[in-house]
Amino acid sequence: MQTIEYDLEMKMLSEIAGDFPRSPWQKNKLSTADAEIIQWPGGDTQCLVLKADGIHEEIQIGLYKDPYQIGWMAITVCISDLAAVGADPFGILLSLQLPKSYDHQWLEGFKRGVNAACKKYEVHVLGGDTNFCPSVSVSTTGVATITNTRPMLREGMKPGDLLYTTGKPGLGNAFAYDIFFEPEDAIEYMPVARLFESKSIRRFATACIDTSDGLFPAISVLSAINHVGVYFTSPLQDLLHPEALETKTLSELPSWMMLAGPHGDYELLFTIAPEDRREFEAVCNADHWQPVLLGKITAESGLSFLTEDLQVHCHPAVIANLFSQSNDHIPTYFELLMNQHLSWCPKHKVNDYAS
Amino acid sequence: MQTIEYDLEMKMLSEIAGDFPRSPWQKNKLSTADAEIIQWPGGDTQCLVLKADGIHEEIQIGLYKDPYQIGWMAITVCISDLAAVGADPFGILLSLQLPKSYDHQWLEGFKRGVNAACKKYEVHVLGGDTNFCPSVSVSTTGVATITNTRPMLREGMKPGDLLYTTGKPGLGNAFAYDIFFEPEDAIEYMPVARLFESKSIRRFATACIDTSDGLFPAISVLSAINHVGVYFTSPLQDLLHPEALETKTLSELPSWMMLAGPHGDYELLFTIAPEDRREFEAVCNADHWQPVLLGKITAESGLSFLTEDLQVHCHPAVIANLFSQSNDHIPTYFELLMNQHLSWCPKHKVNDYAS
Repeated sequence: MQTIEYDLEMKMLSEIAGDFPRSPWQKNKLSTADAEIIQWPGGDTQCLVLKADGIHEEIQIGLYKDPYQIGWMAITVCISDLAAVGADPFGILLSLQLPKSYDHQWLEGFKRGVNAACKKYEVHVLGGDTNFCPSVSVSTTGVATITNTRPMLREGMKPGDLLYTTGKPGLGNAFAYDIFFEPEDAIEYMPVARLFESKSIRRFATACIDTSDGLFPAISVLSAINHVGVYFTSPLQDLLHPEALETKTLSELPSWMMLAGPHGDYELLFTIAPEDRREFEAVCNADHWQPVLLGKITAESGLSFLTEDLQVHCHPAVIANLFSQSNDHIPTYFELLMNQHLSWCPKHKVNDYAS
Repeated sequence: MQTIEYDLEMKMLSEIAGDFPRSPWQKNKLSTADAEIIQWPGGDTQCLVLKADGIHEEIQIGLYKDPYQIGWMAITVCISDLAAVGADPFGILLSLQLPKSYDHQWLEGFKRGVNAACKKYEVHVLGGDTNFCPSVSVSTTGVATITNTRPMLREGMKPGDLLYTTGKPGLGNAFAYDIFFEPEDAIEYMPVARLFESKSIRRFATACIDTSDGLFPAISVLSAINHVGVYFTSPLQDLLHPEALETKTLSELPSWMMLAGPHGDYELLFTIAPEDRREFEAVCNADHWQPVLLGKITAESGLSFLTEDLQVHCHPAVIANLFSQSNDHIPTYFELLMNQHLSWCPKHKVNDYAS
């Protein structure tokens, strides 16, 4: 297997957007935050925060079919990124591409999903754009403010920092696995962006990203930006979301695969300085939620985890890049995942899997 | 021919977006402004102005093929709408959908177009999103402010107001005609959003819209919102952009058809109270540009114009709706245009055209 030691997604982004001149008002550099943070003209203590996102491939490859889910997710993907920078969202712009002969029932379901999510996050649709295209596609722009606090960036974590998520990961991958391989028993997938939890986190986090593209891909991005490694202190199977654990058990897959794919969980993944641990956890407790400790940040690069009885140490981009290397082709992706696993197994284990 | 007395575009927009709850901070109602105008949280005299737009159908139907032009237009479409509300733009979010196996030369051309337009309008790309889809499509969100002045809306014009544009119209339709019928001789089309002219207009205009969807479609929207009519005081052939006049002459088409199609000019179309005419024209003169007087606003609904020797009085939606009625099919659209013309002609004229 070819080993690529850089994140393909970040490389592509740099090729596409790397040579646009930056605004003097912008506080984040390319790729260093989940959303764009702009000093509000007028120069007070406020920032305007914007995030362009959308639901495209998910519809195209058949992951999202239900119009309500598409509407809900179109809003959630933006709000999750705004939560990851510690912003307070208030609006959404919604650009809808749909076939000329669109189904009115489809539209009603979509709008119900949009309205339910907007209500949940206390935001309004401010406007948008409609175009006729052969296939459905939704682009959204989230609009938010940050007032009197510093934004959370993807950069800033230090070796020794503790790595947390807002919830047990793996649900997004479990849902994708079900849709493609066990569609009859597909679990429900309607994640809630971690806007509430973001308010407890923002005072403490040394860095933050959401896991919309999957946990390991998010770790790959954080590692590349911060030049650090990640060491999981608990076995992966103890960290998995209950539904992901069930999917993994039924499908006899190793735990790490539930965290590898690009269809993520919309959890926040963040780091806390060890000296802030006690106070941070007390704040979360007072806010009635429980962060999940994954592991710690290391000076040495690389990703280390125990999946079942297999100890793995690899470059995080190796896992993150597999989907891209499969050309987004699900059966090929699955083959690459299996090959990757076999390459980590000691010889006698390989025979077990191959038998 | 079936006569529909309402604007199909506005009806569809109302169906798609009409029942999203509105933000209490939003200053414009649905369809009543070219961009979304939001009181900046913090409550001073500033508004945040946002506009979601994009280049989709133009690529799909083969109108824009040159990547530089696509990049230029992706920025220009947003800036034009921001100019139409009298806002000062500072940024753009750029969402690009392109095939996985994208052509690097294509991307270079596109980025050059984006950069040239951003430089022209003094804005920066603040961020964006990239997705892989079978065909190219670009969504943009323009970001601007309005400080200490009232925004220009589409509503507010009164009977007796004078109707102007920032430049002679028809270039966009002439370009589209060339691309589809005379591709060897296609004129160049790289319009500049009227940001500069907007600064002279915003003190005076009683209403404003851009002509990105064509002059007559823009008039149809203004008429519907303001419950007024429009009377052209000059024959259309005297108002046409020189290139549109040439295309119309070579193709032996009536002048009105150069103003009918949905591929517009990115001029601003606006109204001035008659008592402000002298001062407004003096300001434009001092700013070294010449507005084009088209006609006046009437209390009686309907659109009246002289095209060559034919006096037409019709509901403006009748012209605006033809493209939608053709199902965006160019040969059908052309047939509908010709039929519409014949329906207006006295009998002996019909025979001339039919011979």
